[in-house]
Amino acid sequence: MDSLVLDKKISDRGKEFFASISGEAPSIFNKGWWTGKVMDWSMKNENFKIQLFRFVDVLPYLNTSDSLTRHIDEYFAGDDQDVPKVLKMGAGVMGTGLGGKLAAGLVAKAIRSNIEGMAKQFIIGENTPDAMKNLKKIRKDGFAFTVDILGEASVSEIESEAYLKEYMELLDALKKEHASWAGLGGKDLDWGHAPKVNISVKPTALFSQASPKDFEGSVQGIEKRLAAILRKVKEMNGFMRIDMEQYKFKDITLEVYRRLRSSEEFRDYPHLGIVLQAYLKDTDQDLADLLAWARAEKLPISVRLVKGAYWDSETVIAKQNGWDIPVWTIKAESDAAYERQAKMILENHDICHFGCASHNIRTIAAVMETAKALNVPDERYEFQVLYGMAEPVRKGLLKVAKRVRLYAPYGDLLPGMAYLVRRLLENTANESFLRQSFAEEAEVERLMENPAVTVEREKAQRKPKAEAEVAGLARFENEPFADFTQESVRQAFMDAVAAVRAQLGKEYPLVIGGQEVRTADTLQSVNPANPSEIIGTICQASTKEIDLAIEAAKKAAPAWKALSPEERAGYLLKAAEIARKEIFTLSAWQTLEVGKQFDQAQADVAEAIDFMEYYAREMIRFGKPQRMGRAPGEMSQLIYQPKGIAAVIAPWNFPLAISCGMSSAAIVAGNPVLYKPAGPSSVIGFTLSEIFRKAGLPAGVFNYVPGRGSVMGDYLVEHPDVALIAFTGSMEVGHRIIGKASVVHPGQKQIKKVIAELGGKNAIIIDDDADLDEAIKEVLHSAFAFQGQKCSACSRVIVVEPIYAKFIERLVEGARSLAIGPAEDPTYFMGPVVDDKAQQNVLKYIDIAKSEGTVLYSSPVPAGGYYAPLTIVEGITPEHRIAQEEVFGPVLSVMKVKNFDQAMEWANSTRYSLTGAVFSRSPKHLEKAREQFNVGNLYLNRGSTGALVERHPFGGFNMSGVGSKAGGPDYLLQFMDPRLVCENTMRRGFAPIEEDDDWII
Amino acid sequence: MDSLVLDKKISDRGKEFFASISGEAPSIFNKGWWTGKVMDWSMKNENFKIQLFRFVDVLPYLNTSDSLTRHIDEYFAGDDQDVPKVLKMGAGVMGTGLGGKLAAGLVAKAIRSNIEGMAKQFIIGENTPDAMKNLKKIRKDGFAFTVDILGEASVSEIESEAYLKEYMELLDALKKEHASWAGLGGKDLDWGHAPKVNISVKPTALFSQASPKDFEGSVQGIEKRLAAILRKVKEMNGFMRIDMEQYKFKDITLEVYRRLRSSEEFRDYPHLGIVLQAYLKDTDQDLADLLAWARAEKLPISVRLVKGAYWDSETVIAKQNGWDIPVWTIKAESDAAYERQAKMILENHDICHFGCASHNIRTIAAVMETAKALNVPDERYEFQVLYGMAEPVRKGLLKVAKRVRLYAPYGDLLPGMAYLVRRLLENTANESFLRQSFAEEAEVERLMENPAVTVEREKAQRKPKAEAEVAGLARFENEPFADFTQESVRQAFMDAVAAVRAQLGKEYPLVIGGQEVRTADTLQSVNPANPSEIIGTICQASTKEIDLAIEAAKKAAPAWKALSPEERAGYLLKAAEIARKEIFTLSAWQTLEVGKQFDQAQADVAEAIDFMEYYAREMIRFGKPQRMGRAPGEMSQLIYQPKGIAAVIAPWNFPLAISCGMSSAAIVAGNPVLYKPAGPSSVIGFTLSEIFRKAGLPAGVFNYVPGRGSVMGDYLVEHPDVALIAFTGSMEVGHRIIGKASVVHPGQKQIKKVIAELGGKNAIIIDDDADLDEAIKEVLHSAFAFQGQKCSACSRVIVVEPIYAKFIERLVEGARSLAIGPAEDPTYFMGPVVDDKAQQNVLKYIDIAKSEGTVLYSSPVPAGGYYAPLTIVEGITPEHRIAQEEVFGPVLSVMKVKNFDQAMEWANSTRYSLTGAVFSRSPKHLEKAREQFNVGNLYLNRGSTGALVERHPFGGFNMSGVGSKAGGPDYLLQFMDPRLVCENTMRRGFAPIEEDDDWII
Repeated sequence: MDSLVLDKKISDRGKEFFASISGEAPSIFNKGWWTGKVMDWSMKNENFKIQLFRFVDVLPYLNTSDSLTRHIDEYFAGDDQDVPKVLKMGAGVMGTGLGGKLAAGLVAKAIRSNIEGMAKQFIIGENTPDAMKNLKKIRKDGFAFTVDILGEASVSEIESEAYLKEYMELLDALKKEHASWAGLGGKDLDWGHAPKVNISVKPTALFSQASPKDFEGSVQGIEKRLAAILRKVKEMNGFMRIDMEQYKFKDITLEVYRRLRSSEEFRDYPHLGIVLQAYLKDTDQDLADLLAWARAEKLPISVRLVKGAYWDSETVIAKQNGWDIPVWTIKAESDAAYERQAKMILENHDICHFGCASHNIRTIAAVMETAKALNVPDERYEFQVLYGMAEPVRKGLLKVAKRVRLYAPYGDLLPGMAYLVRRLLENTANESFLRQSFAEEAEVERLMENPAVTVEREKAQRKPKAEAEVAGLARFENEPFADFTQESVRQAFMDAVAAVRAQLGKEYPLVIGGQEVRTADTLQSVNPANPSEIIGTICQASTKEIDLAIEAAKKAAPAWKALSPEERAGYLLKAAEIARKEIFTLSAWQTLEVGKQFDQAQADVAEAIDFMEYYAREMIRFGKPQRMGRAPGEMSQLIYQPKGIAAVIAPWNFPLAISCGMSSAAIVAGNPVLYKPAGPSSVIGFTLSEIFRKAGLPAGVFNYVPGRGSVMGDYLVEHPDVALIAFTGSMEVGHRIIGKASVVHPGQKQIKKVIAELGGKNAIIIDDDADLDEAIKEVLHSAFAFQGQKCSACSRVIVVEPIYAKFIERLVEGARSLAIGPAEDPTYFMGPVVDDKAQQNVLKYIDIAKSEGTVLYSSPVPAGGYYAPLTIVEGITPEHRIAQEEVFGPVLSVMKVKNFDQAMEWANSTRYSLTGAVFSRSPKHLEKAREQFNVGNLYLNRGSTGALVERHPFGGFNMSGVGSKAGGPDYLLQFMDPRLVCENTMRRGFAPIEEDDDWII
Repeated sequence: MDSLVLDKKISDRGKEFFASISGEAPSIFNKGWWTGKVMDWSMKNENFKIQLFRFVDVLPYLNTSDSLTRHIDEYFAGDDQDVPKVLKMGAGVMGTGLGGKLAAGLVAKAIRSNIEGMAKQFIIGENTPDAMKNLKKIRKDGFAFTVDILGEASVSEIESEAYLKEYMELLDALKKEHASWAGLGGKDLDWGHAPKVNISVKPTALFSQASPKDFEGSVQGIEKRLAAILRKVKEMNGFMRIDMEQYKFKDITLEVYRRLRSSEEFRDYPHLGIVLQAYLKDTDQDLADLLAWARAEKLPISVRLVKGAYWDSETVIAKQNGWDIPVWTIKAESDAAYERQAKMILENHDICHFGCASHNIRTIAAVMETAKALNVPDERYEFQVLYGMAEPVRKGLLKVAKRVRLYAPYGDLLPGMAYLVRRLLENTANESFLRQSFAEEAEVERLMENPAVTVEREKAQRKPKAEAEVAGLARFENEPFADFTQESVRQAFMDAVAAVRAQLGKEYPLVIGGQEVRTADTLQSVNPANPSEIIGTICQASTKEIDLAIEAAKKAAPAWKALSPEERAGYLLKAAEIARKEIFTLSAWQTLEVGKQFDQAQADVAEAIDFMEYYAREMIRFGKPQRMGRAPGEMSQLIYQPKGIAAVIAPWNFPLAISCGMSSAAIVAGNPVLYKPAGPSSVIGFTLSEIFRKAGLPAGVFNYVPGRGSVMGDYLVEHPDVALIAFTGSMEVGHRIIGKASVVHPGQKQIKKVIAELGGKNAIIIDDDADLDEAIKEVLHSAFAFQGQKCSACSRVIVVEPIYAKFIERLVEGARSLAIGPAEDPTYFMGPVVDDKAQQNVLKYIDIAKSEGTVLYSSPVPAGGYYAPLTIVEGITPEHRIAQEEVFGPVLSVMKVKNFDQAMEWANSTRYSLTGAVFSRSPKHLEKAREQFNVGNLYLNRGSTGALVERHPFGGFNMSGVGSKAGGPDYLLQFMDPRLVCENTMRRGFAPIEEDDDWII
């Protein structure tokens, strides 16, 4: 059919549909109801909307009247006076003269009940009896259903197992009921062809360890439990649809579907469906692939096509990670994609059953007309809408299309709230079709426009943003994280490990003044997961080589200083480009030499690249003379110059990033570097030297001088020609360096500068209203990722009493679910610690923990490598050593406190002030933390690790460092001396006047 | 006469005048001439104009062909290609094929000769025979004359004496000639009434030590020599006019005139005139006063009224010093003032003879018509124009007005160049009437407009500048320097000294936690000019009082930290206001306690005020959270918080400024302070405590704890509760503090921060093309002001060989001219050093100087006080102790170098890197200094002292400090720890989007 003709038909049918339902508003926008009023407010007041969503989100955690009242105050204080009135509707206390606490309590109660009431509108039931009753009711009204159990986040296998159990119980209940139901349309099956029992399952909740990094493990983990559900569904001849969730799980979910559908057990059972999201840019291809697969396998499939419900978070996450945005960014693009994909499915109706899930009348009309045009039999497509929403649409649909299925969530209100928030979002988003059609009565013509046309118009209206540029450079952007959703990325890591493995065991010289220098004394670096695997043998500098390197640096210094900031920055940018090209190889070295998991290793290399890109721009910024004052007759400019020779003494835990950060800052500021890597990461240190060599850095500007601290450490620090020392490491060594550097030695021309970033004893506070789904994942990650070997790692979790039991239970189960093994295998969350010394140290602290508290969990570990058990200990108070001393390993102390104030006090009870985090949904508590949680990097509602260059300038104070912020705007200042050059420009009473002079008007 | 009628007549006469001279251009704009071409270029090309003026200025110093060629290259390289062609005109080498050095030499020679030729046009002669010849010639042409001897800057009394001698010789020459001249108009006197011999004298050149600060001394110093000239003038019945120079000498000059005119010796001799400048806002009043005085004294006077020739520098200086601009800022305002004042003089023609000095035809016409309207007799007014300029005007004038006198400079070309620059400026300034009338042929109507009308129009066109504001505060402005031209200011200092003297001898307690604390141990502070005068007796803290103060600070800390930056800044602004009100008293304390001269003391208090005003604004700036990155879904902010308790250990040499700077920075950043003043300035330290008390600073935030370093110094530095130490003082003590502070003591929670500003061994380089008039004054000031007791003081002057002899001769004579005595008497340039220890130390170094070099001058000193001789020693090389060690007293080492490169090398040959200065007019050498002169504060063509807050952030590196810049934009960072607070704002997949998010388009 001619597409214009079809489009006309679609538009006509849509208008008819509109007319047929005109005057009927969906309950949520019925302003007579409390919900309607609140939704109305939300649309008018963006701030209220945000606060309301957040309040709804936290509501299930507010178990006491005090807590509820306090949160209402915090969320809605300062807002328009009418807002509380709206919220209080139905409280029955307005004008009654009830005052004070009692009234507040009543209001709070009313608000809770109003919101819970609103939530319940979208849920088929909180228990099976209720659910069965309601399901029967909707079937009576002529609708089919699909039930989905609420509960999205599993932080442990025990939770995934519990989720599975819920499905089994639901199916048991349905089993009892369904036989008594007549099929819609009177036959045994609904409409003569569809199973009456229909469930939808969110796959990732069934496997708590699902992660795109571990594709195969995730597929298997999910498939195992899904198969159990499907087995039971099959027993009652039901239908199971695998829901589609976040983009990162999309390929895993598709793979699970293909495997289950084509498995021996189920390949003859057709009632297994999948969901595709039209808003994903991938979907055209995914759909085509899936149809081709079905044809090839000769397996009929069923696809529910939705628009997609995670648009905000997909976009935010992509932006935060530096990835391409996976979703269409214009709403009409998704609509157009939907119509395109619906057509493709309908064209393949012989092999693919279609579930059209949309509330958009244009979309529905398009599907109807397209199906008609393609002569698609009725039993090959049906319509689906959300339970509790868009009532007029569903009624209208039922009239016209007959086959309408309601998507009916079931289960506890707590996870229900998360669902409610997403639904509310959908309803009030500016672009929402529903809002437009019912709330704003936008013109029908416009609503019926072909979305492809809308897209073109909107594209034409969008103007490219003008981006600030620094000296012709694009604005700094963080290097993207590895996107493990891509198979090629996962493979690249494996390949790189293999390639690096082939290069193990070499001898590495020092590099001084561009020359390789070999020494008799050498050190072996080994794979901590398998100490018999030698990574490399590294020559070790003695004081003699330090002298050589100082001479090389002195020789290189004048020419290097004389280059312009732009020229020096150019070398860094070139080095960044080299590292970018070699990112997988550089990561693989870390996996093998220090036991970094792929994501951790890649993040480290990315951070190294970030440091170079950022400091290059920063140096260009500082390189511009800054005019001081505006006095006519003088030109006074503040400029910066290098301090002199820099000693960079680096740790092994961020073996490339921190080494590169300190070195590149020194270098770009004009200071030649003597770089001493940590022993266990000396080969990675050599790769840094190689990067700079390949970037063409002049000889002597960067000197690679690994060596034993006991042999050359003090000598380097005390050397009269060393002007600055950049050190990252332990507090003890830091103190030693600061002390040694403070003594002026004969021949020394300058006061030495020490930039020291030391340890931490970082706490995460769990408030009683914390979102535990997020908090537990983040605590586990902060405490145990890379074996807790980060100065930023969480080593204390401080939990307020009301939430303590629940948190601990979930935390320990979460920890128990983490697999431990070699970093090169993505199955494992945690690997070995760096060496035997580290292993012994951790074991020592585990003994201390045992003596000071109660060990809740101490994991088994593989044999062979330098593994240390993941350990959680409770009953810890600030007096304990385990609460005060940095362990630098996977040991987490749990501290129970009465309330948030005590949490803050305990958090601040150590000598360290590095990182910290708070999980709370109390605006006041977050504000208090902002003011009082005395750490260099404070994170609110996220973990304590993972600082990014520029976004999270990193570093602490007190005994955690000198108040330096790596990757921040003040960092380079530490590597330079400021100079003021003031020229008197007046000669013989005459001065040229500058534009920015403070001259007469 | 009706003013409109008069205005019409003026305009008509002006137009007639124009018509009469039409077609005649003044020689300088005659484009056929080389000068005309160059002037034409200057008008079209602002950059060329600046370079040309600067080149003309330096030309007399370019004594070798190489030097000349090099400067031509440096000044005119990179300019339009036509420029060199213009400059080379007349060189006769264009197109001759002569290349290389020879050609360059010829070009240089041609340029020099062209410029010298241009200069000579404005000079009546370089020697008396030439002058006499030319004077005769102009008289023959019908013009009278007044001769003025070029040479404006005297840096020593011997130079002033020489200038006097030149006048005497000129008068001798005139004496021989004038008898043979017939009076103009045929009678014995010119025009029947005017002396034939007429000279103009610039008064300040006659007394090298003239300074508004010492009004009476300046008047007497000038009067003495002027009287000698007048005596000789009187002998030959000549006329002497006292010229008017810069504004700062105006009142001195007027006073000299009145004294001479009314003196016993000359009150009956009427031929003594004065000059008034119409561009000064004071002139209406000055003229009225002068006329009233003449009437009261019954002494006929003569006034030459000029527009004024120092407009640029008067404006720049006022702006630089924070004073009201003394001149009219619209050109027409000066013109209008001129007409107004001319009228007033003409109205008083019975008592006042009028010299109308202007080239402006409107002005001339106005004077003519006004004189006519007032029936002023011819002999009561005459016209004056500059020799060598405005030839058509002078010819026209002669025709119409008959009585025209040419102002004829006489003397060496070297000072002549300065004169030439001023004349060139006048001719090419945009507003120049001459340029308009001859060079641009602007409409006559407009040129004849009544300037009062022009003023109104231009005022209406000027729009007020929008000034950047910080949190409602006006942009930072430096506190104005004391304006000693004002009698009230001079008196205020004297009164304040008397008032402070009445308060001497009190006992001063410590102030801890807002309470006075007295101790048994006390210290006496004395007047260094008179040690028997006790300034005060100061209680001395022991470790016990330090503990007390630490407790008070700890108690005050939380509340102080909790205040907003704006609130803390508010206290500083209040304190600044208090100091501003008490500025004379605070200065007087310094004069008596540490021997600071009034200007030095006032500058110190002003700097203290500046620190408070600046740091207040800086803290508000730093107080604003700085968003990091732009990631949607998170709000990441960099903020700063106080480090903790600060120990401020201050020096006595800038007793209020540095104490206040370090303390106010600490305080405004949120750190409570323990302030230990230096012993010799403890009472001044107490005044700081009083300022803060009066400003209402909460108790314990600022604790005044004077004490003996030997008793409590280390204790304070090592105290585990002290988080930061701000120290300004000697290198030795600095090293000790840095060492002690680096050791971590039990109970210590933080790594101590030391902000140290230490010593200097500052050099000023004198290049062979330096403007010695300026260089010598600045070197003397930098080396000996406040007795050289500044870390920024010049203690080495490095002179390149070609200029060495000339420089040294002038320098030593300049030094010899400086008077030494108590600071409270403004007669004295230099006073006593601070105490007997300082005196002994200086004497020790003078002995060392004597043993290492040749003492060129060592001044006598008064008896009684702690005086140390002002000493200049030559023959010093970098090996000498006197070239390496900081003396902190009035001892200047002179180092002779071969060339500029060696000067730079020697300048950089000490461990210190604090201040330095270069006097050079070579753009390349200035650039080299900018790059290589390794000091924290480098000054080009000005002295090495006198850094101002904001305009000149102050501080050095190497052994001069830690690279901290007091009064600069990075300073406060040192007093704070940075914190990053990053909130994950995404909840349930929904994040509020901020305006500056990196969101989709």
